[in-house]
Amino acid sequence: MTLTLLFAAGGDAWTDYAPHLDAAIAEEGLDARLVTATDAPGEIDYIIYAPDSGLRDFAPYTRLKAVMSLWAGVESIVDTPSLTVPLCRMVDPGLTEGMVEWVTGHVLRHHLGMDRHILGQDGVWRNEVVPPLARHRPVGLLGLGALGAAVGRALVGLGFPVHGWSRSAKRLDGITCRHGADGLAATLAEAQILVSLLPATAATDGLLDADALALLPKGAVFINPGRGSVVDDAALLAALDAGRMDHATLDVFRTEPLPADHPFWAHPRVTVTPHIASATRPDTAAQSVIANIANHERGAPLAHQVDRSAGY
Amino acid sequence: MTLTLLFAAGGDAWTDYAPHLDAAIAEEGLDARLVTATDAPGEIDYIIYAPDSGLRDFAPYTRLKAVMSLWAGVESIVDTPSLTVPLCRMVDPGLTEGMVEWVTGHVLRHHLGMDRHILGQDGVWRNEVVPPLARHRPVGLLGLGALGAAVGRALVGLGFPVHGWSRSAKRLDGITCRHGADGLAATLAEAQILVSLLPATAATDGLLDADALALLPKGAVFINPGRGSVVDDAALLAALDAGRMDHATLDVFRTEPLPADHPFWAHPRVTVTPHIASATRPDTAAQSVIANIANHERGAPLAHQVDRSAGY
Ligand SMILES: NC(=O)c1ccc[n+]([C@@H]2O[C@H](COP(=O)([O-])OP(=O)(O)OC[C@H]3O[C@@H](n4cnc5c(N)ncnc54)[C@H](OP(=O)(O)O)[C@@H]3O)[C@@H](O)[C@H]2O)c1
Ligand SMILES: NC(=O)c1ccc[n+]([C@@H]2O[C@H](COP(=O)([O-])OP(=O)(O)OC[C@H]3O[C@@H](n4cnc5c(N)ncnc54)[C@H](OP(=O)(O)O)[C@@H]3O)[C@@H](O)[C@H]2O)c1
Repeated sequence: MTLTLLFAAGGDAWTDYAPHLDAAIAEEGLDARLVTATDAPGEIDYIIYAPDSGLRDFAPYTRLKAVMSLWAGVESIVDTPSLTVPLCRMVDPGLTEGMVEWVTGHVLRHHLGMDRHILGQDGVWRNEVVPPLARHRPVGLLGLGALGAAVGRALVGLGFPVHGWSRSAKRLDGITCRHGADGLAATLAEAQILVSLLPATAATDGLLDADALALLPKGAVFINPGRGSVVDDAALLAALDAGRMDHATLDVFRTEPLPADHPFWAHPRVTVTPHIASATRPDTAAQSVIANIANHERGAPLAHQVDRSAGY
Repeated sequence: MTLTLLFAAGGDAWTDYAPHLDAAIAEEGLDARLVTATDAPGEIDYIIYAPDSGLRDFAPYTRLKAVMSLWAGVESIVDTPSLTVPLCRMVDPGLTEGMVEWVTGHVLRHHLGMDRHILGQDGVWRNEVVPPLARHRPVGLLGLGALGAAVGRALVGLGFPVHGWSRSAKRLDGITCRHGADGLAATLAEAQILVSLLPATAATDGLLDADALALLPKGAVFINPGRGSVVDDAALLAALDAGRMDHATLDVFRTEPLPADHPFWAHPRVTVTPHIASATRPDTAAQSVIANIANHERGAPLAHQVDRSAGY
């Protein structure tokens, strides 16, 4: 029987995704039709979903097999009581590549001290400072999931010693992997550059508070493309103001868009980027979602299922 | 018989190098003594050399077997008539790593459009621009020598399509290699980001003139950590002013230090860095020079010899 897939996402998402979803459906040989609205929610098999659709009540979708998120972060939907079927996160090779590029670029930017030159074109030739080589610049990496692991691999490829941290124990080539509370302290103590690719969950909320930030080596840099809730904003600003930390490059915030009067915008040691570290790429994302549905229809378990109790 | 090695370099080089040279001599088991000056030039076997020593007349060094440059660029010494023994360039793993980091960092900086954020912290949340993935951003790489080849490998590792160009034909994994005049035109035509790691020679002087720059795709970026003589400054400024090119990040110049009144400093589309792309690292460089001498004393040919007619 023909499947019915509801596409529920705001903005221009439909225009961006429709051709790629059609192509992926054809490629997978999936017998499915795509709709963007329905009078008969009971006939929907899967919802391809983004929170900006406004859809929050899943109760009417009585035949629903799964919700496929177009976003990697699912914090705004994971606790929805009416969402009782499996919820799958976005894992998209394009998203991963983009994140690797963004993090690698900003790690190198801080490693090389590029801002000194970009912001300081004053005609004075200052060539005294020779940065250490990457192999002498340890990077801390919080979160070793789909994105963190790929980022870690790229940083190791460039020679950086990488100290990774996750909830469960892990082994990843070339990365010193730690987990749990003790593991966090040891990871922070090494991290001249700290990157967070942690999801927003109850357990990660405010994880980087004043005590945690105090464990970083003096002059550390924080790069956050994960979720803003991981850091205590006031504690971060205090560490920067005291000169204990050198810089923070932040892509994600507790409130987005970051309000124009938030102190991060004006702070000389903070770079705000507007949640652009990596976008889901409609071509590769559509393929990944449709392949997941098609495999499931052929009897395979759904990939990338969110663990609702862990919240990610 | 004990070899005598003359260390001839200006500034603080002796302080930086002495301990590493001693360590490398011990490690190689080389029977050699280091001097920083001599009354008996006829007793010197090798000169470890930088142009800022002021030494230009090699005639008195009648027993000299070779001159070992501490610098990768040898343009200021290669034509010295009294220098008739072999001249070896610096090839240093530390120098190579540093160059890979610098070029990769600046390629990613321009690829991601970082400056927009670094220079534009104005409280306005602009998240419309999604850069293409690296795999859709072709990079042109002029020079596939010790440095160019390593840089190319790193860029390929990050997904960039790399179009390389050299004097002789080459095969390098994952890189489209071209050579000669036709090869140059094809390389430039692909290069959304163009990197030069060419040496300063008669043949490379002014290579990137107005005609060559006109072959680049509109909006191209030029990154020059090689030598300043490769580009025609006026033609580059004209291409930037006309908006045909987006940006130039220049580490090397026809005159260094770049004079404070040079238009590059004030140009909004130019980033000047003060010849810091990569420094020779005394520890690894000392090892590399001493290993070259020791191997030569054991009968091997000298590595990294400069081809005096080609000039590099
Ligand atoms: N800024 C952007 O443009 C952008 C784009 C995409 C995604 N993101 C963010 O990036 C986050 C990570 O994405 P992903 O695909 O890599 O997620 P993922 O595959 O679910 O990985 C999450 C990682 O965080 C670890 N983790 C979760 N809770 C933890 C805890 N309490 N303590 C220690 N480690 C914990 C997990 O540990 P285990 O491995 O032990 O499970 C896992 O390694 C997303 O949640 C999203 O918020 C941002
Ligand atoms: N900014 C800095 O901090 C810094 C630091 C170190 C070095 N450098 C510069 O980087 C340059 C490159 O260093 P390297 O160690 O890679 O040198 P290298 O090993 O001698 O390589 C030079 C490359 O340029 C190519 N080439 C030379 N003349 C050419 C021509 N006329 N047409 C086309 N290709 C030509 C060579 O081609 P073939 O392979 O066919 O010979 C080779 O691939 C040095 O000369 C130095 O000036 C700058």
